[in-house]
Amino acid sequence: MSEEVSNLQTTAGINQQRLWGHLMKLREIGAGEHESEGITRLSFTPPEIEAKKYIIRLMEEVGLDVKMDAVGNVLGRLEGTNPELPVIMTGSHVDTVIQGGPFDGSLGVLGAIEAVRTMIEHSEQPKRTIEVVSFSDEEGTRFGAGYLGSKALTGQLKPGFLQLTDKEGFTYKEALLSAGFDPGRYIEAARSQEEIEAFVEMHIEQGRVLEEADVPVGIVTSIQGPLWLKVKIQGAADHAGATPMAIRKDASLAMAETMLAVERVAVTYEGVGTVGKLNVTPGGVNIIPGEAEFTIDLRHGSEEARSSMLRDLYAAFHSIESARGVSFVSEITKEEAPAVCSSEIQTVLDEAADECGIGSTPMPCGAGHDALIMSTVSKMGMILVRSENGISHNPKEWTTAEDCATGTNLLLRTLQKLAHGEMERDV
Amino acid sequence: MSEEVSNLQTTAGINQQRLWGHLMKLREIGAGEHESEGITRLSFTPPEIEAKKYIIRLMEEVGLDVKMDAVGNVLGRLEGTNPELPVIMTGSHVDTVIQGGPFDGSLGVLGAIEAVRTMIEHSEQPKRTIEVVSFSDEEGTRFGAGYLGSKALTGQLKPGFLQLTDKEGFTYKEALLSAGFDPGRYIEAARSQEEIEAFVEMHIEQGRVLEEADVPVGIVTSIQGPLWLKVKIQGAADHAGATPMAIRKDASLAMAETMLAVERVAVTYEGVGTVGKLNVTPGGVNIIPGEAEFTIDLRHGSEEARSSMLRDLYAAFHSIESARGVSFVSEITKEEAPAVCSSEIQTVLDEAADECGIGSTPMPCGAGHDALIMSTVSKMGMILVRSENGISHNPKEWTTAEDCATGTNLLLRTLQKLAHGEMERDV
Repeated sequence: MSEEVSNLQTTAGINQQRLWGHLMKLREIGAGEHESEGITRLSFTPPEIEAKKYIIRLMEEVGLDVKMDAVGNVLGRLEGTNPELPVIMTGSHVDTVIQGGPFDGSLGVLGAIEAVRTMIEHSEQPKRTIEVVSFSDEEGTRFGAGYLGSKALTGQLKPGFLQLTDKEGFTYKEALLSAGFDPGRYIEAARSQEEIEAFVEMHIEQGRVLEEADVPVGIVTSIQGPLWLKVKIQGAADHAGATPMAIRKDASLAMAETMLAVERVAVTYEGVGTVGKLNVTPGGVNIIPGEAEFTIDLRHGSEEARSSMLRDLYAAFHSIESARGVSFVSEITKEEAPAVCSSEIQTVLDEAADECGIGSTPMPCGAGHDALIMSTVSKMGMILVRSENGISHNPKEWTTAEDCATGTNLLLRTLQKLAHGEMERDV
Repeated sequence: MSEEVSNLQTTAGINQQRLWGHLMKLREIGAGEHESEGITRLSFTPPEIEAKKYIIRLMEEVGLDVKMDAVGNVLGRLEGTNPELPVIMTGSHVDTVIQGGPFDGSLGVLGAIEAVRTMIEHSEQPKRTIEVVSFSDEEGTRFGAGYLGSKALTGQLKPGFLQLTDKEGFTYKEALLSAGFDPGRYIEAARSQEEIEAFVEMHIEQGRVLEEADVPVGIVTSIQGPLWLKVKIQGAADHAGATPMAIRKDASLAMAETMLAVERVAVTYEGVGTVGKLNVTPGGVNIIPGEAEFTIDLRHGSEEARSSMLRDLYAAFHSIESARGVSFVSEITKEEAPAVCSSEIQTVLDEAADECGIGSTPMPCGAGHDALIMSTVSKMGMILVRSENGISHNPKEWTTAEDCATGTNLLLRTLQKLAHGEMERDV
């Protein structure tokens, strides 16, 4: 492939100032009165709809052929010289969490538009069609279920989603109706697997790996699928003064040992494991906790390794139970398969980074993204862009204009290579 | 002393049914509509005042000379044949926590009345005067500061207490005024140290030691004074998927290690240590906790040993800080000196138990009681009575009628021996 690509015109790169201008403009939609309130664009609420309209207008201005599908995914098409070939898709989302930041999702959509705009300005017509997508409801904040748009596009959406309710009691069905969609037609958003050659998503890292490694971008090797557990430990609530250590059944100490077991298991298998939410009851200074409830989030790029983590953790539950005379009840509340990125796309990304002189590092991606869903129907690749202090889902989320431009230049070069090249399905 | 006491008339023991009847009657005062709501008699509220009136009427019926002091302590006096000698005091309290149980405090007051009543019925006039006391505000639930009555009686009350407010915003001063007391005269409740020879308190155990040991009563060796710490750990809140284990600063894992260190320190020094209240923030399933806050309750019968526990704990904070890159801030929020029970009274209690054929065990008392305060001016002893499942400060708090009677018989015999005997101040 690289021989063919070397014939490509090497563009001067994207327009950093223009990209930054749009990032800052989009940031105003759904922004709170004060900067500390961040941005709130929950799915199918007025600010999110307004953000999509902004994207539609920009795509039209750039010269893309724009349409919105049955679940509100916005798709901007740059027709290739050979429109019969499967397309290259790229994009992300513009919905946010409550009081989120200006880059999560937005960078992937605006960066993709900037990249194809640069190609158009240099009169490059790619061989393959490029489609820029802004997916609906990636975050899942409003209805508690994310990836609506990518699941619909890949034909994985189940009708049950229509009955999900938000905290005001509106169903998803009602939300779609009020935004002008016909809920029964969500199935029409599905695209045939044969239509899509590859999907590349650029996203902010939301972690501190790139900052620590002092490089602007990461090339993703796999997306770690999260497995969530809810654990409840039953012990005995006794008086903190009147109960000797030897006869206690302290649920919180059993929880403490479990938390350290989660860390141990994560380190052993080179995955990650987190206890992020916990509570003990009754919760008095001088009362031994009789009950502890907490969550566990386990992630690994390999599903097999994640299963081993879980198996080791269950063994830890068992031995803590016996040692402390408490009882564990746990349930899996979420289980998403990890996705390995296409080695072909990783190679293209590596070459593109080299050609553009961009410092990069291969890395797993710990956060879930639409790319995880897209990987089930297409080759998939991801670019991560350095986050300041790893802060995300927070008004303080930040990525510099330079890093946004660097990631977008890498995306541009990668799209050029993918859209001009002959690719072999590597599945 | 035992030679002299052996001349005593051996009474037939207390009236179990009568004692139980009063326990069940007193239980009705401040009781919720349903049994599951327990009993609420907060200090200087109408139910607590009614309970004290019940005690006053009963003391009068029994034939005691009753008075209420300047802070509402109820004192019933059985004059001795030698009224010049320092008195023997016994009693507890009738205020409760919110939704408390029927025995905490009440058993010590009603049992003491039953014991002296039995003496009176057998025409026993002790050599020393016996005073039965029902102390004001032992629990401290309403104003956040306990032991009001015993502190006033021992001259340890500081005027600042008058400004304490309850959750409705009433000051202690207002509460005293509305109950008919002159707040400025609290100092008049103080008794001279020379007036009091010994204080003996009977109380339910509020733990499971006696149940495990299968004996009805415990003879207390020391009252473990609580030392409370509030600890805050600052780490970094990062994305649970995007942050490798090696670069995390997880405040909750630092907390987990600290919790296990508290247990280790308590076991090492044969004291007790508890983390009963904790919280981590931000508290999302997929967010590494950046901050953890929790309490530590340390207790030991020896102040020196408790200091060693604290010293070892501070060392643990320090090593966890270095290992995990987090920072600890801690403050001591409560520090009460432990009290060693009078060996003379312990001997009397042991002899009395033997004479009455009551199975007993020496044990430290982990909960705080008025006896802790009384020990600063007088010899002090305590009888603990078996609690079912160790449950206390709870509507389910329970002690059988038989155990209540057994404890009261031990108290009776002990009062007989103390009030007839010549005692040496063992300070």
